[in-house]
Amino acid sequence: MDLLSKINSPADLRKVAPEDLPRVCDEVREYLIDTLASVGGHFASNLGVVELTVALHYVLNTPEDKLIWDVGHQIYPHKILTGRREQLRSVRRRGGLSGFPKREESVYDLYNTGHAGTSISQALGEAMARDRLGLNHQCVCVIGDASVASGMAFEALNHGGHVQTDCIVILNDNDMSISKNVGALNQYLNRLITSPTYNKGKRIWYSILMWLPLIGPLVQIFSRKIERTFKDFLTPGSLFSDFGFRYIGPVDGHNVAELVEVLEKAKELKGPVLIHAYTQKGKGYVHAERDPIVYHSVSRFNREDGTMQGSKARGKISFSEIVGETLCEIIEHNEKVVVITPAMIEGSGLRSVADRFPNRVFDVGIAEQHSMAFAGGLASGGAVPYLCIYSTFMSRAYDQLIEDVALMNFPVKLIVDRAGCVGPDGETHQGLYDLGVLLSVPNVRVYAPATGGELKAFLKFVEKDSQGPIAVRFPKDSADRESLLPANLPDVTRIRPEIHQGGKDLCILAVGIMWETALGVQKELRAHGIYATVLGIRWIRPLDIEFIQNTIHDCEYMVILEDSAINSSAASHIRWSLNSASNAKHLHTFAFPVEAIVHGTREEIMHDHGLSKEAITGALLARPEFANRRIPLARQA
Amino acid sequence: MDLLSKINSPADLRKVAPEDLPRVCDEVREYLIDTLASVGGHFASNLGVVELTVALHYVLNTPEDKLIWDVGHQIYPHKILTGRREQLRSVRRRGGLSGFPKREESVYDLYNTGHAGTSISQALGEAMARDRLGLNHQCVCVIGDASVASGMAFEALNHGGHVQTDCIVILNDNDMSISKNVGALNQYLNRLITSPTYNKGKRIWYSILMWLPLIGPLVQIFSRKIERTFKDFLTPGSLFSDFGFRYIGPVDGHNVAELVEVLEKAKELKGPVLIHAYTQKGKGYVHAERDPIVYHSVSRFNREDGTMQGSKARGKISFSEIVGETLCEIIEHNEKVVVITPAMIEGSGLRSVADRFPNRVFDVGIAEQHSMAFAGGLASGGAVPYLCIYSTFMSRAYDQLIEDVALMNFPVKLIVDRAGCVGPDGETHQGLYDLGVLLSVPNVRVYAPATGGELKAFLKFVEKDSQGPIAVRFPKDSADRESLLPANLPDVTRIRPEIHQGGKDLCILAVGIMWETALGVQKELRAHGIYATVLGIRWIRPLDIEFIQNTIHDCEYMVILEDSAINSSAASHIRWSLNSASNAKHLHTFAFPVEAIVHGTREEIMHDHGLSKEAITGALLARPEFANRRIPLARQA
Repeated sequence: MDLLSKINSPADLRKVAPEDLPRVCDEVREYLIDTLASVGGHFASNLGVVELTVALHYVLNTPEDKLIWDVGHQIYPHKILTGRREQLRSVRRRGGLSGFPKREESVYDLYNTGHAGTSISQALGEAMARDRLGLNHQCVCVIGDASVASGMAFEALNHGGHVQTDCIVILNDNDMSISKNVGALNQYLNRLITSPTYNKGKRIWYSILMWLPLIGPLVQIFSRKIERTFKDFLTPGSLFSDFGFRYIGPVDGHNVAELVEVLEKAKELKGPVLIHAYTQKGKGYVHAERDPIVYHSVSRFNREDGTMQGSKARGKISFSEIVGETLCEIIEHNEKVVVITPAMIEGSGLRSVADRFPNRVFDVGIAEQHSMAFAGGLASGGAVPYLCIYSTFMSRAYDQLIEDVALMNFPVKLIVDRAGCVGPDGETHQGLYDLGVLLSVPNVRVYAPATGGELKAFLKFVEKDSQGPIAVRFPKDSADRESLLPANLPDVTRIRPEIHQGGKDLCILAVGIMWETALGVQKELRAHGIYATVLGIRWIRPLDIEFIQNTIHDCEYMVILEDSAINSSAASHIRWSLNSASNAKHLHTFAFPVEAIVHGTREEIMHDHGLSKEAITGALLARPEFANRRIPLARQA
Repeated sequence: MDLLSKINSPADLRKVAPEDLPRVCDEVREYLIDTLASVGGHFASNLGVVELTVALHYVLNTPEDKLIWDVGHQIYPHKILTGRREQLRSVRRRGGLSGFPKREESVYDLYNTGHAGTSISQALGEAMARDRLGLNHQCVCVIGDASVASGMAFEALNHGGHVQTDCIVILNDNDMSISKNVGALNQYLNRLITSPTYNKGKRIWYSILMWLPLIGPLVQIFSRKIERTFKDFLTPGSLFSDFGFRYIGPVDGHNVAELVEVLEKAKELKGPVLIHAYTQKGKGYVHAERDPIVYHSVSRFNREDGTMQGSKARGKISFSEIVGETLCEIIEHNEKVVVITPAMIEGSGLRSVADRFPNRVFDVGIAEQHSMAFAGGLASGGAVPYLCIYSTFMSRAYDQLIEDVALMNFPVKLIVDRAGCVGPDGETHQGLYDLGVLLSVPNVRVYAPATGGELKAFLKFVEKDSQGPIAVRFPKDSADRESLLPANLPDVTRIRPEIHQGGKDLCILAVGIMWETALGVQKELRAHGIYATVLGIRWIRPLDIEFIQNTIHDCEYMVILEDSAINSSAASHIRWSLNSASNAKHLHTFAFPVEAIVHGTREEIMHDHGLSKEAITGALLARPEFANRRIPLARQA
């Protein structure tokens, strides 16, 4: 740490002699491993970009030069080098550093990111603004090979190659998204790296020209493979050249000297440049190198043997795992069922499904738009598609949900994971918009289970449903395994809300997962002499409005609890459907405000926004309607 | 018409002798020109695909084989050949044929489309469903060169090249979107068509191999251009091969015999195939060939001289033109202002801006996702970006609006054209979701002008605004030129709604463009002795809720008028903000239901959904609150 301890900004880094850069890299890596072993966080991807980060800040004049990180979970080395070394211990904790770039933290963080594929658009925007204002700094972005295959990255490449402004795209090719990477582009990149021009770092046109008279006659047997190999050999990266970018590479992303040299050269070039660097996720920590998927994001771990702490409680199963297990059961007996995921095999609990039924799970890569239209096509063609997607990423497929699924009423099953508050990933990953998306669209029925058993029962129920699109939204939560036994599964075809009666002072409408919180609030209130009825709403559309209205009718007041942003809420939909009399009883809707909801644990964030049992109870007791009220026990229902 | 008159289905077409196919094409083209000259509709693109359509239905066994049209405004020849020849006269009229594919019309129309770039996803979905069900029909889609550059088409290519199922993508390359096409991919396609392999239709590997020993020494001067030319020459379409598609082309899209031959061959190939056909928009009608932009969509025209009828009323200016003219004024004096459009230079009224200030307008192609993130980047870099986008296409940028603009509070100006009901384009183009999108997102202020003057004043006002993202949404409408004179421009910084008092029986909240309708309703009601106050809401966020509440307070009842879908409405937002007392006075919100809103004229559709002056007045008079009521004149305010 004798070098790193003196680096408190990129300016300090630039004072280091070039020959000492490998040592800086080693120290950054050591610091990373040490720190994350004790606090956890995104891990493997950060180990992969140590040299890249050092080289970039060494060559570029940041922050005047613009450096943009795609997705941003690989930003830890950048944070270490930009004055946030010590703070890294607080990463992803409430009040601590964000695990992603964050403008509020540092002038070196240009964009609060989280979703993939945005950086080329942003670098182009910066570059065109620079040109417009007559400035002349560099605009550079670092994008992974999974992100570059997303549609919007292509749109940006297509635009950048057309306008030919100066900018540098660094393709950080580690052959991985969170899972193993997929897609034709990925295969193409692999070919480049393993081609004869591998690691040459420069064009070999001259020598090729000399060989041509010899090669020609040798290649007598026509084949696409030979043709392709020959073409890649002649013009490596021609796909990017075809897009108007000057291709440089592949270069070794762990050779900091080579990276510095290439970057220095690239800075002098006119027009858009793409540097193809190959890196290894988990580089320098043997356990992470061996299993970068497991070490993508870690809890605390033992540095020596790599074992992680804090595995989940015995007898528990996560909601995502329930999805995976249940889909296995369904696929086993239904030939028509297929599963689609946009690059979230692990996150959506589909590893077991993909391993057992590899040709039934389509990982389409980071391609939410395509995933939705593709699901529509599958449904139209007679298959039974389950689209497993994170709430926050479904926003990318809003148009396709409207146009390519809902308006045509295709029976696509939308399995919306990570709905509600997501915790440590913070503001760019919050699942707060999905209800707004789903409820604004025609024909989509929406279900929000309160328990893992309901989730499982729903997944089984929709297998036979062909009425039209149907969605289930659920948070990152877990259930008791026991509750999933066949005998314990509820009947989800019942639209009527669950009712837990306790009194007529207040009706608590709890949407989906808020059921348990509502029961807790009910109990707390009772201790204060306030008697509430809890109405657990699972079906948000259709809504059993008569039953809800009747229940509210019997109570004095009404509140709604949900884990959505208030402008994208079930509450809007419910209140719109209620008559004036019921609406007049509405005291408050407990939901998230329409603003950036920053990171912390799920419990902390819920509490901070008044959505914990304690916060809700406290807020209700503080209301004038209840404040100094002691209701006689006789009034209890 | 002696051949065409006998063709009432593709099966009839397949009975025609191959040598007669050119005559069929001629007859289809004649019929198209004749019909559209008298009824109007999408024109140039339909003339461009006559041979392609005939060849496809001739070779494929439709409808068993799946044929999917991207966007779909080029579907007229398909409709002519699939039993809807006579009905074509009703196209885009209420109750008549849709101008797009429509499942409800025919088994030959597989998807109701309208937005670009979806067909490869759909063809892949059909193909994977076919494989899953053990069937073996063909899955074919036709996609334009503008659509194929959209992000989701790339996502689908990337997936299709990976899974290697049998499907055929026909790239209909006419070098145009509605405007002249842009983007690096477009330049690439142009190079293919004009390359030495042009129209060879087959690989020329063998001959190349023979020439190599000669070519090598000649190319002594290294140049990217020579390298590229050489590569394209060696392996035409390598970009698509790199994506795992077998590339065939370029082929002449107006040579029906060649098309039939190529399609027959392609049917036999395994794996994904891309056929690159070059066509000419407007082919066969000289005026449309010369100016395909003007003839993209036509009103009735004189077949002889090409002159179109029904130009707009004198002294009128469309809202889109107001945008163009005002942006010219702003750009002239503000160096920082730039304009972004996703392939809608013409539609968004930007032709004059692009012509006068070519380096200030960025047409990014059909790339809504990129357009939004790019606008964020421009704002971050210090430029002043106006993003001109259609309401219906903004849904494609929902995620980027949240993540890449709103959460970071970037001062992007969103100019949302074609908001509300769009008329003849029908269900896939309705601008009914934008308010839901804008209001669900943090930080975005939203303005809905009631007049062209307000639109102009707003555009000027936001130039200096740097508080954060701000949006204006307006329909396809027009204004009197006179109302745009500087002296007539209103002060849009005033958040307070416009008030037009008439009485205390009813408060009519009119959102944006509904102001005029509301005044009409007010007048009609007065004739029936019902005295209403009209409150014209322009600023939807922020909302002057106190003023609105006070106004409602003075009235007996309240209704809301707006041209949005009810679940994506300003009304939701307004009612959420109102207190219970005001809400209790709410009788009804006049808005669109959450369902597919089919085509017709804008007036017809508004009326059909109860949003015309007459319909609203009628509905109010029929209410029990007003039905038999005659209010004495004295109560008039």
